[in-house]
Amino acid sequence: MNFIQKLEQSWSSSNSLLCVGLDPNWQKIPEHLKTLPEPIFEFCKAIVDATHDLVCAFKPQIAYFAGLQAEDQLEKTLNYIRETYPHIPIILDAKRGDIGSTAEMYAVEAFDRYKADAVTVNPYMGQDSAQPFLDRADRGTILLCRTSNSGAGDIQDLEVDGQPIYEKVASMISREWNTHNNCCIVVGATWPEQMSRLREITGDMPFLVPGVGAQGGDVEALVKAGQTANGKGLMINSSRGVIYAGNDQNFAIASRKVALETRDLINQFRNS
Amino acid sequence: MNFIQKLEQSWSSSNSLLCVGLDPNWQKIPEHLKTLPEPIFEFCKAIVDATHDLVCAFKPQIAYFAGLQAEDQLEKTLNYIRETYPHIPIILDAKRGDIGSTAEMYAVEAFDRYKADAVTVNPYMGQDSAQPFLDRADRGTILLCRTSNSGAGDIQDLEVDGQPIYEKVASMISREWNTHNNCCIVVGATWPEQMSRLREITGDMPFLVPGVGAQGGDVEALVKAGQTANGKGLMINSSRGVIYAGNDQNFAIASRKVALETRDLINQFRNS
Repeated sequence: MNFIQKLEQSWSSSNSLLCVGLDPNWQKIPEHLKTLPEPIFEFCKAIVDATHDLVCAFKPQIAYFAGLQAEDQLEKTLNYIRETYPHIPIILDAKRGDIGSTAEMYAVEAFDRYKADAVTVNPYMGQDSAQPFLDRADRGTILLCRTSNSGAGDIQDLEVDGQPIYEKVASMISREWNTHNNCCIVVGATWPEQMSRLREITGDMPFLVPGVGAQGGDVEALVKAGQTANGKGLMINSSRGVIYAGNDQNFAIASRKVALETRDLINQFRNS
Repeated sequence: MNFIQKLEQSWSSSNSLLCVGLDPNWQKIPEHLKTLPEPIFEFCKAIVDATHDLVCAFKPQIAYFAGLQAEDQLEKTLNYIRETYPHIPIILDAKRGDIGSTAEMYAVEAFDRYKADAVTVNPYMGQDSAQPFLDRADRGTILLCRTSNSGAGDIQDLEVDGQPIYEKVASMISREWNTHNNCCIVVGATWPEQMSRLREITGDMPFLVPGVGAQGGDVEALVKAGQTANGKGLMINSSRGVIYAGNDQNFAIASRKVALETRDLINQFRNS
């Protein structure tokens, strides 16, 4: 079973398009966890246990672990998810990208060391830089296309033959890079109009959608713009909104509450 | 002293534009090192000791360490260089890039955890994604512009208003991102004509130049195209050519020999 199939099954079994991002910021982790031997792992584990039946995927962000010198706790987090909830796809958010044997080593990092089901990759260096990821046919490669930040347009919106670069990138990925049917793209939640055009360009390719808050309007617009005909096609990521919903002993209960609300809000606007 | 000043001093004191890339590929490390407790560190240390007086910078590539679960040996390698040869700038080649607090954590990883003098960053997500790196005024941010790989043109060469994207990126960095005078760009050695245009666009901004082999023609063309008026402005990287020059007990001597030849070849074509 490859990544896309695993994701399809997860969308169905969870009845959810919500992806919970695991971004363990030390300043925001509940104080009572900080005295434990592996506080970052314990934090992530508690969030995972509290939300596992509400998500289509988990997305640990490697930067938070790397900044804290905690790659061991990242490994442990992925192992825990994989062993306890083997049906849930794990996306390692790493935005890697390099050439030749260096890109191969990044693929080893994501897929062999961390055993992620999919990894985020930056396409700026071109197809050959993504190839070592794409060649892992059982795993997913999630390529940045139109990101959610305010400066995203600096390069991504430049126009080539009357078409923004991010559309060119989406076309290239869809037509040329996706020979193993294991590509997805990142499309920011903040740009529903662009998302609907990208849906036209890429057919049923899954979108990883960062940038969702708890604002209903945004969710409605993005689900309507981005979903596929069968009401799937989206991994709508929320990180801070879910995982920092509380910061006391009951933080995991608070995160479950927000995850449930977000999943249900998303589901209101899905094609059935 | 900021990164650019440290680099200027290093160019002068070493009389070298050569940067040696530390890409410790397990398959290519000499067998006799593999029984040591920290073979990757020992390999890098031997290369550093053998070439330190011939280089303007060292560039460890994080992917090789991450793929081998060896972040501790990467830390040790950077510590060793910094303590033993404090005048030599260290570039962490990581090609990071993300938004907001995630980019901040990547800056922490590069500049606080590994204490690198500079880090390579992918510009695709726009200025705000680079800002946490740029804001570290004492450190260098080396942004991908025109890379050396065969697929580099897939996105970088697309034309916007009659100008390739990589030139637009170089202009943006030069005019808008470089407020702390701590930016450099990556320009592949394989494209001397493009390099000479990028030199016009960016003034004296330093270029990190990957893709050099031991071929004289290439070196001549790129030095002539890329150097500044005073014969500097380039960090010409060689990784495999230098560090895998030998693979027996005398590997470090072999690497010194190639580093010396490469430095001298480069120097033949420098403005004095």
